[in-house]
Amino acid sequence: MIKSKNIYWHEGIISREDRERLKGHKGVTVWLTGLSGSGKSTIAHKLEEKLFELGCHTFVLDGDNIRFGLNKDLGFSRDAREENIRRVGEVAKLFTLAGIINITAFISPYISDRKKAREIQKDGDFIEVFVNCPINICEQRDPKNLYKKARNGLIKEFTGIDDPYEEPENPEIILYTDKESLDDCVNKIISYLKQKGYLGEIL
Amino acid sequence: MIKSKNIYWHEGIISREDRERLKGHKGVTVWLTGLSGSGKSTIAHKLEEKLFELGCHTFVLDGDNIRFGLNKDLGFSRDAREENIRRVGEVAKLFTLAGIINITAFISPYISDRKKAREIQKDGDFIEVFVNCPINICEQRDPKNLYKKARNGLIKEFTGIDDPYEEPENPEIILYTDKESLDDCVNKIISYLKQKGYLGEIL
Repeated sequence: MIKSKNIYWHEGIISREDRERLKGHKGVTVWLTGLSGSGKSTIAHKLEEKLFELGCHTFVLDGDNIRFGLNKDLGFSRDAREENIRRVGEVAKLFTLAGIINITAFISPYISDRKKAREIQKDGDFIEVFVNCPINICEQRDPKNLYKKARNGLIKEFTGIDDPYEEPENPEIILYTDKESLDDCVNKIISYLKQKGYLGEIL
Repeated sequence: MIKSKNIYWHEGIISREDRERLKGHKGVTVWLTGLSGSGKSTIAHKLEEKLFELGCHTFVLDGDNIRFGLNKDLGFSRDAREENIRRVGEVAKLFTLAGIINITAFISPYISDRKKAREIQKDGDFIEVFVNCPINICEQRDPKNLYKKARNGLIKEFTGIDDPYEEPENPEIILYTDKESLDDCVNKIISYLKQKGYLGEIL
């Protein structure tokens, strides 16, 4: 429900299609979801690098980073996680409308939250990428020592330990970061974008 | 204060400067502030049109529009207005970092809220444009019949009627929409952007 009353929708003079024509590719959200340590941020930034080399206009919305700004008022309770993902989904949509290939790297553990982020965008504007990695591998990697802290009770509500991760049911892409190399993972996403026509005039 | 703990800042591989080089101009926030009916949205969209014709990558964040999405949970109380502008300021910053000329059209009535939106960005990344128009002219225009409703008590907390508007003290640009034409206003902003080097390789 929209709380504000007396608001009106302004149509811009410059359309999304105009912006996409200028950039030579479509705007789209590449939504990475997976456990902490599964490789989301690494994949996001490597994907951005490769897309940039192709001349694409990109931006990474990062789970850790955005919590320093837009979502710095939110913690990790169920409600806060939902609001976190809701806002990120709305910002991702704005970037899509701006004609940018935006890559989001958030654990985003709940199916319902990801579904909402998808549903506010048009069909095809939201590509769900399941960064699939067994938790024991994620825990071995533990690049930020978070699993250790969670096991020791120093972090509460940690996804995979004392908070659930709901695997995607029908993601557009699945990456197996325990078996596939970083380059393989990134190329899998780029192949999908090429095949489906997102990169348009560029390729 | 940042509520989240155990978060880390990821530096992207592709920098803001890389993105700006691709686009041929700088990322910047053009922040329009002024009363309802002063002409903010009209100027924002016309400015986008002209910048687009110059080959610039632009996006309008609109006071009315964003309340349908990111800020649909917020009303118009003092706290809600503050949070509204805080979030818009954070999103504007993301667009600046993405290398986009982002144009925001929000009443943003409080000096302190605008100051915060400026301070989270680097020097020069935030251009405050005071869309200055006497309230009696805005009320005559009343394109959405909002002043009429506010005068009749149907809308509470309406800026200029029963809620304050704090004029900018040192805006980079002032537009007088009761005296200057739409084209004049837009050209004034574009001249500023040119002079200060924001449009870089484009002009």
